[in-house]
Amino acid sequence: MTVDTRVEPGWDGLITLAERAVGLSDPNPRVACRLVLPDGRRFEGHTQAAGDAHAEVMALRAAQAAGADVRGATAYVTLEPCSHHGRTPPCCDALIVAGVARVVIAAIDPNPRVAGRGVERLRAAGIAVEVLPDDHPVARATHELNIGFWQRMRTGRPWVRMKVAASLDGITALPNGVSQWITGEAARTDGHAWRRRAGALLTGIGTVRSDDPRLDVRLVPTAWQPLRVVLDSGLDISPAARILQPPGTVLVYTASDPAATAERRAALAARGVTVIDRPGPPKTPGGAPKVDLAAVLADLAEREVNELHIEAGAQLNASWWRAGLVDELLLYVAPRLLGEGVGLTTLGPLTRLEDGWPLVFHDVGRVGPDLRIVARVPGRAPF
Amino acid sequence: MTVDTRVEPGWDGLITLAERAVGLSDPNPRVACRLVLPDGRRFEGHTQAAGDAHAEVMALRAAQAAGADVRGATAYVTLEPCSHHGRTPPCCDALIVAGVARVVIAAIDPNPRVAGRGVERLRAAGIAVEVLPDDHPVARATHELNIGFWQRMRTGRPWVRMKVAASLDGITALPNGVSQWITGEAARTDGHAWRRRAGALLTGIGTVRSDDPRLDVRLVPTAWQPLRVVLDSGLDISPAARILQPPGTVLVYTASDPAATAERRAALAARGVTVIDRPGPPKTPGGAPKVDLAAVLADLAEREVNELHIEAGAQLNASWWRAGLVDELLLYVAPRLLGEGVGLTTLGPLTRLEDGWPLVFHDVGRVGPDLRIVARVPGRAPF
Repeated sequence: MTVDTRVEPGWDGLITLAERAVGLSDPNPRVACRLVLPDGRRFEGHTQAAGDAHAEVMALRAAQAAGADVRGATAYVTLEPCSHHGRTPPCCDALIVAGVARVVIAAIDPNPRVAGRGVERLRAAGIAVEVLPDDHPVARATHELNIGFWQRMRTGRPWVRMKVAASLDGITALPNGVSQWITGEAARTDGHAWRRRAGALLTGIGTVRSDDPRLDVRLVPTAWQPLRVVLDSGLDISPAARILQPPGTVLVYTASDPAATAERRAALAARGVTVIDRPGPPKTPGGAPKVDLAAVLADLAEREVNELHIEAGAQLNASWWRAGLVDELLLYVAPRLLGEGVGLTTLGPLTRLEDGWPLVFHDVGRVGPDLRIVARVPGRAPF
Repeated sequence: MTVDTRVEPGWDGLITLAERAVGLSDPNPRVACRLVLPDGRRFEGHTQAAGDAHAEVMALRAAQAAGADVRGATAYVTLEPCSHHGRTPPCCDALIVAGVARVVIAAIDPNPRVAGRGVERLRAAGIAVEVLPDDHPVARATHELNIGFWQRMRTGRPWVRMKVAASLDGITALPNGVSQWITGEAARTDGHAWRRRAGALLTGIGTVRSDDPRLDVRLVPTAWQPLRVVLDSGLDISPAARILQPPGTVLVYTASDPAATAERRAALAARGVTVIDRPGPPKTPGGAPKVDLAAVLADLAEREVNELHIEAGAQLNASWWRAGLVDELLLYVAPRLLGEGVGLTTLGPLTRLEDGWPLVFHDVGRVGPDLRIVARVPGRAPF
């Protein structure tokens, strides 16, 4: 993350530090805090695993460990310190007790239980509080780093990111189904870094059958494995599917008749898999019921999933787009023409270009020999 | 064109000046020259229209017009000064006669009639000559600006650039044929700037029938109109087709039987259109003969076309790729999903990913809301 160098030096590298909470602090936001003491010494920390210390407490502990007196210090915090007893005591109180004189905050917490109350509490204790404007580079970087947290707090849904790998002519699999590997090793590794950001990784029964993916985080170091989620309307998943293997939690959403699939449910339960009923209307009149995608999102939000990462086939991808529930496309593009095959989605056929699904390019860059394109649905970013 | 600022100040902005010869100097290369006089004054020029003055002469004239004595000056030239009588007298002689003391050259002329002889001639006259290494930023920029000139001199073929506009999912037209406009105004204008670079603009009879394009340079200012070229194996083009209208020269390549199409040929000739026979084998055994693409390239090279710009449909595009004759893909990508329709080409179906047509990303950037991707076939750049 590039941060404008014109900003107050107290912010230097603080977003990079907050990024270390990725794959660690979920569902808590990724936050960093730096204490700058009157004598110029600096102590820092970032959010730990949920239930463990927040960034402010980590910075205070670092100062304490060095025997430093933080009275009169300035605290730079990328997110408003919490004011409520959640899994841990409020960070505001820790800063107040420590005698910090000034707190500079990059962004107000979108959590309705905080949302300005942290600032009030600090000010009530006589601390000088400043909040950066929303367009400040550190504020923006905080937003981006916590886009899923913002989305969940503001809309009650996770931020929905769909990952696809395709050739330059938009082919994701050859007509015979061959799709491994269209993009290179660097793109696959980068894709795992995006998986690590997510609270849940989702695919469909079609992909489970054709590719039998593990859908975990392997190619980048991580202490954290996101939830693994399968949409399986008919509950047809094989108990031997690799995605069901440990470690980590697996959710299978289904629209199947509980009585008719009782045996399969029992077999899955025996493997530690959670089967969740979220039946929705059939795709075509008279067809079998399909999993209700909006209901899946609502359930995942209740499970505190901030970012949902979808890696599915063209059909399920199309269902997500048709439902209007995709927020972001993460597209890896290989420099190759394949001519014919499966596309990104089975959307269409359209008769007018205006009826296409609009996006805005957010970030475009090289990953090894491939391109990585991040495109967003207009108006979806929750800040 | 960004030029490394660590280079000798004499080069400052000289590539930008050379770029002014785009749409002017073809088939001559785009070259700029700067004279830096012992008293520090600077005089510059770039290649004019073919038959008019080259860059060196323009710079000398500018000095002369100011009454400046260029004896002892250093000349910075982006391309080796010519040593032969072409359409104009050799620039080497002009520099020698003027008493220039030192010449710094960004790149040796790939023209076999020059190719180092300019340097020799200058040195023989007692001038100090330096040539930049190939990886110097100004040398590279000269190569890129003249990629078609290099290609034609080194391989006897134009540099073949294929332009396509597609959605993010690789759709160039909806199933009902609607394709205008997938990309935005900025991309269309940018596309005309690339057309202006070209010595010839090429399309197929399919596109002429479906879109009836003018295929000229309109959206950017230009004194120059490239050749317009139609591949029309059966010579089915309507004499009313917009591409045949003035101004400029139109070539129609055909594989049709001259006797059977005599009347149509006469009608086209009466409109000033040049019909050229380049029959090749049929696409399928027993079918009608098709225009021989390699023979078209050879003929266009003889006509001194440096850069050939193809804007055709998916079928003709595929033929160019199958023939292995495309050097560069110029792809505009709109941030929109269209789901289903016509792709970039009708290549395929393949059974193995390795059989795809490989490219290397050369340049990727934004053009208004769209992306512009320049990708090259590996090993094709002629420098």
